Amino acid sequence: MRLLLGSGGFRTDQRRALYVERMQRHFGDIERVLFIPWALHDHDRYVSVMGEKGLDAGYVLEGIHRFDDPISAVERCEGIYIGGGNTFRLTDQLHRSGVMDLIRSRVADGLPYMGVSAGTNVACPTMQTTNDMPIIMPPSFDAIGLVPFQINAHYYDGQIYVKSGDDYVEHFGETRDDRIREFHEMNEHPVVGLWEGGFLEVEDQDVRLVGSDARLFLRGESARDVTEADGLSMLMTSSS
Amino acid sequence: MRLLLGSGGFRTDQRRALYVERMQRHFGDIERVLFIPWALHDHDRYVSVMGEKGLDAGYVLEGIHRFDDPISAVERCEGIYIGGGNTFRLTDQLHRSGVMDLIRSRVADGLPYMGVSAGTNVACPTMQTTNDMPIIMPPSFDAIGLVPFQINAHYYDGQIYVKSGDDYVEHFGETRDDRIREFHEMNEHPVVGLWEGGFLEVEDQDVRLVGSDARLFLRGESARDVTEADGLSMLMTSSS
Repeated sequence: MRLLLGSGGFRTDQRRALYVERMQRHFGDIERVLFIPWALHDHDRYVSVMGEKGLDAGYVLEGIHRFDDPISAVERCEGIYIGGGNTFRLTDQLHRSGVMDLIRSRVADGLPYMGVSAGTNVACPTMQTTNDMPIIMPPSFDAIGLVPFQINAHYYDGQIYVKSGDDYVEHFGETRDDRIREFHEMNEHPVVGLWEGGFLEVEDQDVRLVGSDARLFLRGESARDVTEADGLSMLMTSSS
Repeated sequence: MRLLLGSGGFRTDQRRALYVERMQRHFGDIERVLFIPWALHDHDRYVSVMGEKGLDAGYVLEGIHRFDDPISAVERCEGIYIGGGNTFRLTDQLHRSGVMDLIRSRVADGLPYMGVSAGTNVACPTMQTTNDMPIIMPPSFDAIGLVPFQINAHYYDGQIYVKSGDDYVEHFGETRDDRIREFHEMNEHPVVGLWEGGFLEVEDQDVRLVGSDARLFLRGESARDVTEADGLSMLMTSSS
């Protein structure tokens, strides 16, 4: 199993360069990658913008919405990439299209999977550590479940600030750590808070952090920060 | 019908003073207010903290979790206040407890209702403009529906920033406006983005903004900013 799970926020030159390098290493010398743009409203535009911004890394991204049958598109592809946007909308469409089990089994058999932001959320057992607004109710919060732990994409630490003129004004909504603590009041799975610009690279039972730090939240324990030097493979044997 | 709907973020002296003044004006000379703490995990602690911080405004807040029968607690109360926390957890409990229809009819008959943050979200037709993490799946996203429009609590404009040492680092997740635009890609209801520290005061068909500005999002139109001087009563006749 080979997964490349990005947090999002690939908006600086340095981050984009890392993104392209890891994406090329991940998919290797195939030409076409099946791209699932369901997290955004305008699928054609999403595919175009990926090319315009160089986020296709030189691959032909084939939008799944262009195929008559999404199931056969997943059956035949050589690589799959689920893009970001709204995770509720994406999860809803993944359930309704019937591709979820097939993606899980093909990835288990070696199909390289890439996800960014919402596409990373749905690689987890559930979509419940998303930051998105519930604009639609999916049939279930269950997701593809390629890994046995949750990822919180676009993670950050502490309070946020909003710009007012030249000043930064503190915002008092729940911090991300508050939200993940609330998740653990009702759920068991470990959560990796993945900073923007970062990836988790999974190869069978091996998990590596690339491009950013992360914070690891285990239920009932204090959160701890991890860096690229730390092994994260214990997450793959998580029993909860 | 009398509603006091707060955004949250009542953390500065000035904001707290306004909060106490409006809460006292809202509930008047009753002694006891039924408080619904279901959005947080620890209900007893929530009620205690409200008192410690002066957010009870001198009223006896009676936690609904202390009553054997939540239905009769709602039937008998003279004022009701739903506090903030996680809106998914709150909505789930509102559905499961069976109090939702009763709250709606009692408020229609004149019971004063106060909500803050999650408690403001659930006064809307649905809870779908929450900012919270989906830590539990409620039976439905439908909420109490005291008003015919949506409120986005803790609203802010533009990108957010995270503090790194003394620096402010831009965060690239979706802005709040992006999220509300996505809501309108799939839903009709108007959305009021209510800045922290602010309230909407509703008296029958009259809607007033107090303590902050707000941004009004109508589907298919450009968002526009409104101030305390602007009338918002057209929101009560919203047909969508």
